[in-house]
Amino acid sequence: MSMQSTSPKSIHTQNIPCIILMQPQMGENIGAAARAMLNFGLTDLRLVAPRDGWPNQAAIDMSSGALDKMPPPRIFDTLEDAIADLHFVFATTARPRDMIKDIYTPRAAALQAQENIHQKQSVGFVFGRERTGLENTDIALCHAIVTAPTNPDFSSLNLGQSVLMIAYEWLMASDTTLGHYTEMGDSFPAANNVMEDFFQRLESELESARFFRTPEVAAKMKRNIRNMLQRPRLTDQEVRTLHGIISALIGNKEKNRL
Amino acid sequence: MSMQSTSPKSIHTQNIPCIILMQPQMGENIGAAARAMLNFGLTDLRLVAPRDGWPNQAAIDMSSGALDKMPPPRIFDTLEDAIADLHFVFATTARPRDMIKDIYTPRAAALQAQENIHQKQSVGFVFGRERTGLENTDIALCHAIVTAPTNPDFSSLNLGQSVLMIAYEWLMASDTTLGHYTEMGDSFPAANNVMEDFFQRLESELESARFFRTPEVAAKMKRNIRNMLQRPRLTDQEVRTLHGIISALIGNKEKNRL
Repeated sequence: MSMQSTSPKSIHTQNIPCIILMQPQMGENIGAAARAMLNFGLTDLRLVAPRDGWPNQAAIDMSSGALDKMPPPRIFDTLEDAIADLHFVFATTARPRDMIKDIYTPRAAALQAQENIHQKQSVGFVFGRERTGLENTDIALCHAIVTAPTNPDFSSLNLGQSVLMIAYEWLMASDTTLGHYTEMGDSFPAANNVMEDFFQRLESELESARFFRTPEVAAKMKRNIRNMLQRPRLTDQEVRTLHGIISALIGNKEKNRL
Repeated sequence: MSMQSTSPKSIHTQNIPCIILMQPQMGENIGAAARAMLNFGLTDLRLVAPRDGWPNQAAIDMSSGALDKMPPPRIFDTLEDAIADLHFVFATTARPRDMIKDIYTPRAAALQAQENIHQKQSVGFVFGRERTGLENTDIALCHAIVTAPTNPDFSSLNLGQSVLMIAYEWLMASDTTLGHYTEMGDSFPAANNVMEDFFQRLESELESARFFRTPEVAAKMKRNIRNMLQRPRLTDQEVRTLHGIISALIGNKEKNRL
């Protein structure tokens, strides 16, 4: 075991939370946690007494390069040492029955962490051992608890998955990505006059083909056709394609306005 | 390879989305995906041409029992077959450059999926191969794209982690858990008169001990003490403990009101 305690004194207040793994057992889980951290921009990983020491080849392999791109994890003998420089520490655990503690969802915890960091406080999230989780003495060292809502019949999360959930929520809390938009690439929806020209041509061709039985039916059908073809927000190119299709179908190349 | 195509005809509209893994390679990733699904209440797993066939012992081991508790995954030869019964299919992939597609964050996609399911539509999320992801022909079969905001310098998510993010957001979209609350266990904050009795005793003891230099300082200090000790919302038991501490400190057991 090449385990070496690091003094937290040199650590400055950071604008991102750190992740603390309490006595992690499987190198694979450390690696998966590191990958999930870096996926969402977290880079301060602290290990309390990892079972197999450090460095750990299984962790490096499982991290898909994340451990090479992050500052090296810092190794501590005790949880007290690992959180010594922090101002607000979350314990990720199920709800305890016999402690008075603030309980957060991962989403609310990420917002709380943002508030703490805005106030120049350093924030950490502590994750327990794979099988046994955090003990009450560990939890008592923390200021609050994060519990994810899960399926009550199958609630045990993999360590790497737990870290991902927190890291993901941390990024989402500061993210300005539009929740939903339509990727248009280099193209642009056709302007209304392009659509109107198209509809008028289509309607005129349908009139010629006696598609509409009665004037009443015609009005309703035209409305339906417009509704249907407005929905996909066609591009200029797509409208040209439809013009081409109409021309091809009526076999009247002279009428093709392109 | 014991691979067997399943007809989707028998599948009824479900009130949860299904997860479709496109040509997954590592059994471990299938197992991690299954565990993440069941953690958040998803149970319909579909595999398109898994590299190592099915069943797969590595998947079963990695699922921590999830694959035993879920209906067996259904195996399909093609993505078309796997999504045949669905009405709205999300492709999880980076933003494509040359397709017009609706793009969702996992969070917005979960809300969209809820809307679809409310309208009795069956919804699926397709996840690509570990190394190469989804091809454009796969994406073209889907109605929309889900892209998670990630660290642009390290954006490649593990397959199981990607599934977790979707499953977690699905549960969160329907979850009513309070984002933040204080777990009080069986206890309850002390009533105001209990606190007031305590503060008056403490102030009187401090007066006796000549703690306050001047009346002006006294008023300010008392305010500060009250502020400080109101913040933790002490319980009756904790107030009794503080009374005991004061008594012990002044060494005057007779005055202990307990």
